[in-house]
Amino acid sequence: MTNRRFILKKRPVGEPKPDDFELLETPIPEPEEGAFVVRNHFISIDPAMRGWLDDAPSYMPPVDLDDAVRATTVGRVYKSKNPEFTEGQWVLGLNKVEEYSLVLPGGFTSPIDVDLVPSPSIFLSALGAVGLTAYFGLQDAGQPKAGETVLVSGAAGAVGSMVGQIAKIKGCRAVGIAGGAEKCRRLIEDYGFDAAVDYRGKDVDTLTREIGEAAPDGVDIIFENVGGDILDAGLMNLNEYSRVILCGLISEYNTEPKGARNLWQTIVKQTTVKGFLIRDYAPRFAEGGAEVAGWIADGKVRFDEHIDSGIENSFEVFMKLFSGQNNGKLILDVSPD
Amino acid sequence: MTNRRFILKKRPVGEPKPDDFELLETPIPEPEEGAFVVRNHFISIDPAMRGWLDDAPSYMPPVDLDDAVRATTVGRVYKSKNPEFTEGQWVLGLNKVEEYSLVLPGGFTSPIDVDLVPSPSIFLSALGAVGLTAYFGLQDAGQPKAGETVLVSGAAGAVGSMVGQIAKIKGCRAVGIAGGAEKCRRLIEDYGFDAAVDYRGKDVDTLTREIGEAAPDGVDIIFENVGGDILDAGLMNLNEYSRVILCGLISEYNTEPKGARNLWQTIVKQTTVKGFLIRDYAPRFAEGGAEVAGWIADGKVRFDEHIDSGIENSFEVFMKLFSGQNNGKLILDVSPD
Repeated sequence: MTNRRFILKKRPVGEPKPDDFELLETPIPEPEEGAFVVRNHFISIDPAMRGWLDDAPSYMPPVDLDDAVRATTVGRVYKSKNPEFTEGQWVLGLNKVEEYSLVLPGGFTSPIDVDLVPSPSIFLSALGAVGLTAYFGLQDAGQPKAGETVLVSGAAGAVGSMVGQIAKIKGCRAVGIAGGAEKCRRLIEDYGFDAAVDYRGKDVDTLTREIGEAAPDGVDIIFENVGGDILDAGLMNLNEYSRVILCGLISEYNTEPKGARNLWQTIVKQTTVKGFLIRDYAPRFAEGGAEVAGWIADGKVRFDEHIDSGIENSFEVFMKLFSGQNNGKLILDVSPD
Repeated sequence: MTNRRFILKKRPVGEPKPDDFELLETPIPEPEEGAFVVRNHFISIDPAMRGWLDDAPSYMPPVDLDDAVRATTVGRVYKSKNPEFTEGQWVLGLNKVEEYSLVLPGGFTSPIDVDLVPSPSIFLSALGAVGLTAYFGLQDAGQPKAGETVLVSGAAGAVGSMVGQIAKIKGCRAVGIAGGAEKCRRLIEDYGFDAAVDYRGKDVDTLTREIGEAAPDGVDIIFENVGGDILDAGLMNLNEYSRVILCGLISEYNTEPKGARNLWQTIVKQTTVKGFLIRDYAPRFAEGGAEVAGWIADGKVRFDEHIDSGIENSFEVFMKLFSGQNNGKLILDVSPD
């Protein structure tokens, strides 16, 4: 009985490469007094993980070299010396890409009731940080008003597809940007966006024009997941007093960033740009989760998961974040047989 | 008797060149019913004017080709067919770089009381858009709290020097960025900044480190006038829940913009970036002007004007905005002999 762990060996320079990581077999950790061990079942693979690999100022310390990569997981308590967590209990927590995670006293882990949902993985998707990032990001940071236009980049992704659907619930026009005809078709048919713009093979000027056609009254809110050319083209379509929710800049993470070269538009349009992290909303997760769960139950929003299996595939699954091959929230299934 | 006018002949590509403009002699305009003509004395030369020359989305239409360049001026009513404006009256208005401006009905012009101030030019500097941009930009958009650190770029400039002084009045640490040892000396000795960083000849990493040394508790507010490398280095020093007031990006106006390549820091620090225009604060100008005038009278703030003379020097004076040769608010004096 061993623990297989996805270890950071070197800090990636640009695009992560296989030999930046290593799959290591170690003994299953033994909890000391107050700690417990979780057998992970589902591991959330998120864009934020790329930032955690760099040694740069952030909201969390970087992942240590020779340690497993940090990730949010859902699993069951395997062995506990913490009276608040009993063996077999399902938990959600900030752990690592590994089969068994040691949770020290004070670690961020909370019990979840898996009987409420069709799959425990939903606590990593619609009811997890992803669904709630869309929920609080659009509503709190964006303050959408009926009749406004919301532009979403990475719109076929886990966060983006939810943002578009919430925009529609709030009475807004939803315009999505995604890569390729198939994703654009899904934006309209699966997620109910009003218009879709395919960014592939287009320069900033062309994207600017196409966004303008898709948003004939201009853009009141940008929900940004991508950055670079896509953000620059969005900025050129802003209305006065618009809001930009900066949720992610995934196009900038693995390369020399292009930067926001049309940032001056935020001056002339008196735009507010808000850097958004879901972390501070933890006290309101129950409120947000309840509303999202209700929308899903009522068929008002659709949430897709893309679940790949096997800890040995950690690197390949992680890299789908950048190639955009996944359709829905990317999750690694490492459940025991 | 003719009117000399600084005419836009071609839209500048990159850095403005002399032959993008022309000094044209025309007859003095004749006002029709409801209009009046102002004999300009002082013309405000501002970074915003560069943006008005481009045919790009903005808060005002671009300057027309073959028309004089738009500018805020102070002058006296020369001939009036508007009963609210009498000949000889001093006025402040959005006019043009020319000796005589025709003000049509509904044009933005207001009477000023020049007996209150040592020079009418002060309505273009400390008591004008520049002083009030610093006043409302820092206080309203920045919400400074005592003990916080305010980082100001273009700190020796008209807006920046005022921002630093208001930051000190509010109990903040003021760190200024400027070009050259002499400007840095003035930041400390003339304007009371706590620390100065000379950006000349330094890359983003070096600037990042030097700002970090000047702001050992991190940066809570950036008041940005410059952009490019300087903004990127500031972003790397942000504290959580920091605010960036985007007032100008003068380093980006004449070249292919470098862009904000460290924008991701605003996500991980949950920063709010506000594009700032003074325009909407017009209803509060009297309130702000009164407080700034009080500070100047009490010797709490110092405001410098850099006044060059002669409409025939319009181009050279305008270009000082980009070379940073001016010390204080840049004003063109076109007063009659």
